[in-house]
Amino acid sequence: MASSSIGWEELPYARTPLGLDASNLVFKRLDWPKPSSISETYLLSGAATDDDIMRGEETEAIGLLSQIPPTEHCVLILPGTHSKHLLISNGRIETFNTYMTGELFDVLTHHSILKVSTNADAPSSLDTADWKAFDDGVLRAAKSGLGLSLFQTRTRAILKQCPPAQNTRFLSGLLIGAELGDALARMTGAKLLLGGAAHLRNLYARALQVLGAKDFYEFSESQAAKAVPAAHALFLQNVWKR
Amino acid sequence: MASSSIGWEELPYARTPLGLDASNLVFKRLDWPKPSSISETYLLSGAATDDDIMRGEETEAIGLLSQIPPTEHCVLILPGTHSKHLLISNGRIETFNTYMTGELFDVLTHHSILKVSTNADAPSSLDTADWKAFDDGVLRAAKSGLGLSLFQTRTRAILKQCPPAQNTRFLSGLLIGAELGDALARMTGAKLLLGGAAHLRNLYARALQVLGAKDFYEFSESQAAKAVPAAHALFLQNVWKR
Repeated sequence: MASSSIGWEELPYARTPLGLDASNLVFKRLDWPKPSSISETYLLSGAATDDDIMRGEETEAIGLLSQIPPTEHCVLILPGTHSKHLLISNGRIETFNTYMTGELFDVLTHHSILKVSTNADAPSSLDTADWKAFDDGVLRAAKSGLGLSLFQTRTRAILKQCPPAQNTRFLSGLLIGAELGDALARMTGAKLLLGGAAHLRNLYARALQVLGAKDFYEFSESQAAKAVPAAHALFLQNVWKR
Repeated sequence: MASSSIGWEELPYARTPLGLDASNLVFKRLDWPKPSSISETYLLSGAATDDDIMRGEETEAIGLLSQIPPTEHCVLILPGTHSKHLLISNGRIETFNTYMTGELFDVLTHHSILKVSTNADAPSSLDTADWKAFDDGVLRAAKSGLGLSLFQTRTRAILKQCPPAQNTRFLSGLLIGAELGDALARMTGAKLLLGGAAHLRNLYARALQVLGAKDFYEFSESQAAKAVPAAHALFLQNVWKR
């Protein structure tokens, strides 16, 4: 991230709550030897609560939410390496939580004993058997929780000869199911909004359906593509106003 | 494991329930060109339920339990790379569960973003600040569960400048606290017995105390050292009887 300690220049985090008009993002106007074709350059910081941090997702969230009518008391889920769940209330991002779902999938399929029972290079498209394995993972996590479920990826391979490609989907279902099951239990009554990259959005939408949470709003690919430019436009409009 | 697919010779798993007299372990008498100083050689298999497996812990469990008076309806916890929780009832190992606690600690401290917030080579002794961080991890997992807690290892480093050595203990507390919190919720009413290597036994005993589960039996170092020979003696006694 450009505004992180290993980026262009470190900026402090903006603190929640964050206005959905981008009005209280922390930013810095950069002074650099830019070509004349480039106008002003702004660096936007990330956001922090008392015990969580993000860099970039707050911008994606503001851009996504600017494209739909205002929604009160909802949770915006942004799947990824570090999935973010943002609680939107009173027209603001009130707080957020992080689940290391994507990174757990990565380290477990590459570096743990589950490596031999899965295939980290499985194609991103899922066939019927893959979806069945994914659903089984979601349901297992819902029934038994994350800690008691992970090793099932290995025992399915040993005791039931489940092939690595399907077991990869099972593990994916476990991790996503555990994340969403936990969130659904915590956020009862909140409307769910689902953003993120298309492939992950599909998996999360399927998992929500398997978990019986059918009443959620899924952002379209076109809305997802417009999220960051929309947030930047809001931000510039706000900066120029000042 | 000598009886696994990558060991000396693969044996099928014994199926639970397993008698505590070692009477229904699966074994094979090995025919090999052994020196005359070595008598009969037996290979013992592991054990399986419908959806879980272990190799070796069943022997450790039988050996540990042979050293204490019979206990009804208890859970024997064997911490490790893949922690095993064995439900003992009706004088048998009725079933068991696996938590990947030790391996999660290993892959997260070596291969995930948490690597920079922890120190996988931290010394095994803990000072006061280390224990405080460990307790904080246990309590955090008890409050928020595993999925929502892991990233806290990073945010503590970023937002509160917690040093890597203490954060390593925090992560250890998180993982052990999540395992034990889950088990305590599942196994209400069961007496807890704690085995395993001394260093892990100490951490698990501390976590149980932090979680308010003070009434557990901790095997001594001397009992732990005698576990495998005691199980082998029981097994040979049983084989010779046949």
